[in-house]
Amino acid sequence: MERITAKYLIETPLEVEAAAQVLAGEQSSGTFVEVPGETAELKRRFAARVESITPLETVTEPAIPGAVSDKRLYHRAMLEVSWSIENFGYNLPVLISTLQGNLYELTQFTGLKLMDLEVPSSFATHFSGPKFGIKGCRQLTGVEERPLIGTIIKPSIGMTPQQTADLVKTLAEAGIDFVKDDELMSASANSSFEDRLDMVTRVINDHADKTGKKVMYAFNITDEIDVMLRRYEKIVASGGTCAMVSLNSVGLAGVKKVCDQGQLAIHGHRNGWGMLNRHPFLGIEFPAYQKLWRLAGVDQIHVNGIQNKFWESDDSVVRSIEACLKPMLGGYSVLPVVSSGQWGGQAPETYRRTQTTDLLYMAGGGIMAHPSGPCGGVVAMRQAWEAAVQGLTVEEAARQYPEFRESVEKFGTRK
Amino acid sequence: MERITAKYLIETPLEVEAAAQVLAGEQSSGTFVEVPGETAELKRRFAARVESITPLETVTEPAIPGAVSDKRLYHRAMLEVSWSIENFGYNLPVLISTLQGNLYELTQFTGLKLMDLEVPSSFATHFSGPKFGIKGCRQLTGVEERPLIGTIIKPSIGMTPQQTADLVKTLAEAGIDFVKDDELMSASANSSFEDRLDMVTRVINDHADKTGKKVMYAFNITDEIDVMLRRYEKIVASGGTCAMVSLNSVGLAGVKKVCDQGQLAIHGHRNGWGMLNRHPFLGIEFPAYQKLWRLAGVDQIHVNGIQNKFWESDDSVVRSIEACLKPMLGGYSVLPVVSSGQWGGQAPETYRRTQTTDLLYMAGGGIMAHPSGPCGGVVAMRQAWEAAVQGLTVEEAARQYPEFRESVEKFGTRK
Repeated sequence: MERITAKYLIETPLEVEAAAQVLAGEQSSGTFVEVPGETAELKRRFAARVESITPLETVTEPAIPGAVSDKRLYHRAMLEVSWSIENFGYNLPVLISTLQGNLYELTQFTGLKLMDLEVPSSFATHFSGPKFGIKGCRQLTGVEERPLIGTIIKPSIGMTPQQTADLVKTLAEAGIDFVKDDELMSASANSSFEDRLDMVTRVINDHADKTGKKVMYAFNITDEIDVMLRRYEKIVASGGTCAMVSLNSVGLAGVKKVCDQGQLAIHGHRNGWGMLNRHPFLGIEFPAYQKLWRLAGVDQIHVNGIQNKFWESDDSVVRSIEACLKPMLGGYSVLPVVSSGQWGGQAPETYRRTQTTDLLYMAGGGIMAHPSGPCGGVVAMRQAWEAAVQGLTVEEAARQYPEFRESVEKFGTRK
Repeated sequence: MERITAKYLIETPLEVEAAAQVLAGEQSSGTFVEVPGETAELKRRFAARVESITPLETVTEPAIPGAVSDKRLYHRAMLEVSWSIENFGYNLPVLISTLQGNLYELTQFTGLKLMDLEVPSSFATHFSGPKFGIKGCRQLTGVEERPLIGTIIKPSIGMTPQQTADLVKTLAEAGIDFVKDDELMSASANSSFEDRLDMVTRVINDHADKTGKKVMYAFNITDEIDVMLRRYEKIVASGGTCAMVSLNSVGLAGVKKVCDQGQLAIHGHRNGWGMLNRHPFLGIEFPAYQKLWRLAGVDQIHVNGIQNKFWESDDSVVRSIEACLKPMLGGYSVLPVVSSGQWGGQAPETYRRTQTTDLLYMAGGGIMAHPSGPCGGVVAMRQAWEAAVQGLTVEEAARQYPEFRESVEKFGTRK
């Protein structure tokens, strides 16, 4: 019978083997006392199984509080635990409850992070995954052999639909590939979703009629289910190509319902991610996280960026990009969205470390606050990636490309 | 204009005032550089506002890694920050993105926890909230002036529908008020949702016909939206009164869609909660968390239990029960679900500290593994609460009530 395997980084005041058995028991057939009915046959079929234990260091201070005992030694290890597909079938929310449920609360652990998961091949017949992915997003925008260049409407909130549309017009004329609403902005008192959609799509459609290039705009449809579906339909009807959802705020069932509609590329924003990931021994790592959203059908997912304005290390960002680009069950292509404090200067290092241009490369202030205006910002961003693929350094690129040089002069001293 | 206020516990290597301004800027109109269009008028209307700062201790080690600097002092404080309702209107997912979005990733913080939130009175006209709450759940079960006594089907997973139905029959005859599926169990290879629903409801309806008492069974409908709604309708059609959803696994939009149907009491299971809450300086505290789910319409929500098998302290459990029982905008009644390692012995202490019987008091092993079988377990649980309300100690109750005495003898040495 097919099994789902999860990999955990744990820390425990118990012997590692004993802690692993607690995890497996709690998340399958066990409770705190033996109960009638937990037969050997039932256990054989439904009990979770500890597949491997790789001991790591032992430390003297617990990573998170709440240990079962006041022992002074805490053992770290990597565990692999598996469950039969018979336990929950093809049910992503129950898979999450099984892999990430009550176990974070167990006193037998002083640290627990879900690092990765493997699903069996039959998942491919039950979850159609991203409808567009990298190839589809390239087709929708007409961008080949370089990253899609994108930006975020800033100020995040407060602009009128007309102001937003005017800005989109400027950006479209500058050659931008992608624009998105901020995650804080869905509908504000001075910018209803419908008005913004109407005015922005008019600009985008006019520009496409004139030039043949259709800017992808990720309208933030984040809200309750019915509202999201209504907005989704309106985007489709107006000829739009993309909708954005805040993954953690909407939740898996809602996001999957949106993705299932299949007519728009879905831009998955991971705001709130820091809460799930910032502590090294609590929560979930991105390789596991992004698989869940790919199964749900998200086409684009945020991975932060090299030298970002947030806490995340470059190594972690690189691992995230690699996780997205690794095929899952041979497919489930998802476009990594590089974002946060980006202005182009990080392109050489991003390319050097990932050797890919299959990215949506986003800059907010880096485009909008460019010394020559947003047009200069877009040009500078394309130049940055041309230079990156040629293997130029930031300094070499600045000598060769005037708009990029302006970016370096304005933003290059930051961080 | 009405405002939403959030209360945060923070730790920062900056001056607290400066960190507070970063939080407010990042979560409203700001980005890492000033951009055109961020006018004074726009800021006045849409910028988040720091309402108060209460300095706490200064420490020399950061609570979580990723600080902006390697300073050696980290200042803790309680902050209140407010946003105009004009920023996002009545949109719970965007409210979450605003109150809990990117800010966990800011290097200006080495600790950030959302402690509580206050919504303005107009929310009451936009969110109908729990359709049943405490009063409705009491009416559906016919239980007055004592906690609803509930249990969880154990083993969590692996029983056939017939075995589950047989157990429910035993429990119903024992006088149980409430039974729920485990969160790991929605549909397994040997227990389809439909078969389990059919067999269990037949037992419950037969028992109700005979005795007038209808056991509330929380069928775990957790899955994708369409599946959940289909299962929901089947429960309604078969005369059931309750459905269970795993809140964190389904997510807010999906849960609200289920709650909006309005025909069943919704049992909100918070598995995964430890990930959001176990670290003292990361995530969200229960007073804030439960408000979001009450707005979404959840009727019953888990609060753990006194002397639980998890890491949570009794003080925290008491605060959670109190948070649920405090009216929100004058209503939004939600029934606290006391659970985890409970067997009745915790009833006196639970009552002493909360002075309430408005609880759903759940025992899994504590009922199922009772020395006289599940019937003895249910009787013991009612006795425990009779004793608790009378102010008896566990020892005094054990002398007075024989079934409870058996519980004490079997479970009383644990923890």
